[in-house]
Amino acid sequence: MNALGRHLLIDLQDCNKEALNDLGFLRDAMLSAAIDCGAVVLGESFHRFSPQGVSGVVVIAESHLSIHTWPEYGYAAVDIFTCGTTVNPEKAAEVLIEKLGAEKPSLMEIQRGLLAAV
Amino acid sequence: MNALGRHLLIDLQDCNKEALNDLGFLRDAMLSAAIDCGAVVLGESFHRFSPQGVSGVVVIAESHLSIHTWPEYGYAAVDIFTCGTTVNPEKAAEVLIEKLGAEKPSLMEIQRGLLAAV
Repeated sequence: MNALGRHLLIDLQDCNKEALNDLGFLRDAMLSAAIDCGAVVLGESFHRFSPQGVSGVVVIAESHLSIHTWPEYGYAAVDIFTCGTTVNPEKAAEVLIEKLGAEKPSLMEIQRGLLAAV
Repeated sequence: MNALGRHLLIDLQDCNKEALNDLGFLRDAMLSAAIDCGAVVLGESFHRFSPQGVSGVVVIAESHLSIHTWPEYGYAAVDIFTCGTTVNPEKAAEVLIEKLGAEKPSLMEIQRGLLAAV
């Protein structure tokens, strides 16, 4: 029984707080993570909040990457959802952990779409 | 210790297969789910694949909703990630379960950002 998708849930603590509040930096980091893991980028939507925080999503041909940041806590919640065998979601995680300077990355993988017919 | 975000991971089986392949229908359903749960929609990105399947994300002021569909299996993977107390993510789940005609919804909630300082 194989899963249709791999879903990495990543909690990043002790990140660079300035980076977590910089929409342009985060957009570039997320797009780099998508491209470096072998994904094909189809769309994106990033937004900065007042007084702080950024949310952003990159839709890829292989599913999506998302990020939500809380600069006041040095925390970011990242999701990397991929399907197929042409992408390496761990690589995307590595890119974001490095770019955000996360000292305590926590990763969990959940298999999505574990269907008897697959 | 409180979580910064609530993340519902929803696996929908035995859905209406035509609905799972209809970008316009899915976009409307996702936007309705966001609005009905009390969220403020900030952006969206939806894409249809060949020969089948749709991916879509709605960015909300309270985080995001995403969907990836496999019409050939009658399956959709939905995520509803919210923060704050002004939204009811279960309501968004109810809307999507009903609209997609899912016979076997499976929901899991993960608390994101369980920080000692929160």
